[in-house]
Amino acid sequence: PIGMTVKLANCESVFRNILSKIDTFLFDCDGVLWQGNIAVKGAPAVVAHLKSLGKQVCYVTNNSTKSRHRYVEKLTRLGFPADVNSVFSTAYTSALYLKNIAKVLVQGKVYLVGNPAMAEELDSLKIQHFGSGPDNQVTTQDHDEVRSCALENDVSAVLVGYDGHISYTKMIKAASYLNDPKCLYVATNEDHRMPLNGERHVVPGTGCVVASVTVAAGRNPDVIAGKPGTFMLKCIQQTVEIDPTKCMMVGDRMNTDILFGNQSELHTLLVLSGVEDQESLNKAVESSDPNMKRQVPEYCMGSIGDWYAIYE
Amino acid sequence: PIGMTVKLANCESVFRNILSKIDTFLFDCDGVLWQGNIAVKGAPAVVAHLKSLGKQVCYVTNNSTKSRHRYVEKLTRLGFPADVNSVFSTAYTSALYLKNIAKVLVQGKVYLVGNPAMAEELDSLKIQHFGSGPDNQVTTQDHDEVRSCALENDVSAVLVGYDGHISYTKMIKAASYLNDPKCLYVATNEDHRMPLNGERHVVPGTGCVVASVTVAAGRNPDVIAGKPGTFMLKCIQQTVEIDPTKCMMVGDRMNTDILFGNQSELHTLLVLSGVEDQESLNKAVESSDPNMKRQVPEYCMGSIGDWYAIYE
Repeated sequence: PIGMTVKLANCESVFRNILSKIDTFLFDCDGVLWQGNIAVKGAPAVVAHLKSLGKQVCYVTNNSTKSRHRYVEKLTRLGFPADVNSVFSTAYTSALYLKNIAKVLVQGKVYLVGNPAMAEELDSLKIQHFGSGPDNQVTTQDHDEVRSCALENDVSAVLVGYDGHISYTKMIKAASYLNDPKCLYVATNEDHRMPLNGERHVVPGTGCVVASVTVAAGRNPDVIAGKPGTFMLKCIQQTVEIDPTKCMMVGDRMNTDILFGNQSELHTLLVLSGVEDQESLNKAVESSDPNMKRQVPEYCMGSIGDWYAIYE
Repeated sequence: PIGMTVKLANCESVFRNILSKIDTFLFDCDGVLWQGNIAVKGAPAVVAHLKSLGKQVCYVTNNSTKSRHRYVEKLTRLGFPADVNSVFSTAYTSALYLKNIAKVLVQGKVYLVGNPAMAEELDSLKIQHFGSGPDNQVTTQDHDEVRSCALENDVSAVLVGYDGHISYTKMIKAASYLNDPKCLYVATNEDHRMPLNGERHVVPGTGCVVASVTVAAGRNPDVIAGKPGTFMLKCIQQTVEIDPTKCMMVGDRMNTDILFGNQSELHTLLVLSGVEDQESLNKAVESSDPNMKRQVPEYCMGSIGDWYAIYE
C-alpha cells in the first residue's frame, strides 16, 4: 500500500493501530537502533516493550562487516534483546544464498572480495572460499602484469561485500573470474555512502566496492543478498514465520529499507534518525519518477524513541 | 555527419578521398597503433606516410599512466614519428584543465587519486598536489576509524585517474573532500575495461577507480579530461591549429574515441584492431538508442595497417 500521503506514526492512536495489526517488526540497525556506537534514545526500551507484547522482532541489516554472533554482542551491549536466530546480516544471507539457492556451488569455490565476518559465515556453512585479507600484489594496467595475477580454477562465484583491503589487483581477479558467464556474481549490498551529520568525513558504503567490480566485470550482480533485494525476506522466512500483511519493516534509508519493504509487500516505517531527512522524504513523495515512488514509506516518524514517549 | 551507413575505408578510392579532405589525424594509441607492447602491423609505416604527405598527426589517449615524455619514448621505440607537442594523454590534459580552466586552483591543492605520471604532469605545471602512492592506513566503516583519516585543508580539487594503490582509505578521503560542493571533481577518463582477446584475464579500466569515488562522493565528475569529453579537443587546439571539418579521429572504442569525434564534429574512423568487433559495431548501427547512435563512426576498417596494403 504505497500512497502519496505518509502517515505520521508518533501519536498514540497510530501507534495503537500499528500494534493491533502488526505481529512482526523487522528493524534495520545503524541509523534506526543506534548511531555509530550509541543507542538511539529510547530505542532499547521500545524494542523490549514490543517483545513484552508478544511481537516478533528481527534485526535486518545490510552491513556485511559483522557476523551474526558479533551482532548479538553489539545488540546486547546496547540493551536490545537478541539471539543469533533473530539477526539477518548480509555476511550471513549472502553465504546462505550461495549454499541454498546457487547449489551448483557445492562443487566449486568462491572468490571473496570481502572481510573476516563474511569469511566466518562462509566457513559456518562449509563453503570453500579464498581471497579474504590483503592482496599485496601491486599491478598496473600493463597487459603482462595483469596476466601475472594468478587465477585459481573451479571458481563458481565471486562474492563482493565490504572489503577494507579492496585493491586494483582484486578488481583484476574478480573481473577475470566473472569473464566466465557461468561464474555467479553475488553482492551483499549496494549502499552508496553514509554522511556523518555536519562533519567533513564521509563513510563510503559497500556500493563503492561493488561499483568498481561491476565496471571491471562489465556485468551487474546476479543477486543482491541484502535490501532492497527480496531474497532477504526468503532468508528470514527460513527461520521466522512471517505473514507479510502483519509485518513491518522499520528503516532509515528509502532506497534500501523502504524499497525492500514495499517490494516485499510489507508495511513500512521510515525513521529520520539516520540517512534521510524531511527534505529527502518530501522529494520522494513529490517525485513523479516511479523508482522514487516505490521508496515512499507508509509511515514516518523522527525516531523509534518517539514511541517510548507515547506509552511511557 | 553521423549516418546509419558506415563507409568501409580499406579501398583505394575511399583512402584517396580521405587524404584529399583531411589534413589532421588524431590517433588513439592502444588498440589502434599497438596492442600491448607490439605495434599493429603496418601502422608505423602508415603514420610515416601520412606525415610525408604533409598531414598533421597527434596522439590522443585516455591512458593516464604515462607522461607525455614516456609516450614519446614508446611511440619512437615502436617506430612512430613523435615529439612531446604531438602527445595528448590524460595525465597531461587533466593537469592542463586544473591550471588553465579551473583557475581557482592557483590558490589550493589537489588531492590526487592517481599515479606517478599524473604527479609528474601536475609538477610540470607547478600545481600543488598530494595523495600519490600507497596510503597504508587500513580503515573499516566504523565511524570513529573513518574520522581518524586525516584531512588536509585548502583542497580545491580531487583528481582521479588510474591508481594501482586505490584503497578504501583513499575513497574515504576523496569522498570527504568532495563533501564540500566547491571542491572540483576531475577524472581523467571512464574507460570500463579491456578484455584480452580470448584470455581469462581482464584489464580493469580507470573507470573502476572513478566509479568507486563517484559512488562514495554521491557526485559525478565535473569534468572528464579525456575522451569522450570535448575538453580534449580544446587542449589539442592550444598547440595545433585544427579545422574540425578537415580533422579525423581514429580510434578502436566507440564510447570514447568515436563519441568524442562525433561530439566534436570531427570525421571519425573506427578500427577493429582493439576493443570493438563487427558485432558491437552492428549493434550500434542498428540501435534506436540515441546514445548508441552518437557512437556510430563515419568510416570503419580492420586496422590502420589496411592502408599500407593499399598504397604499397
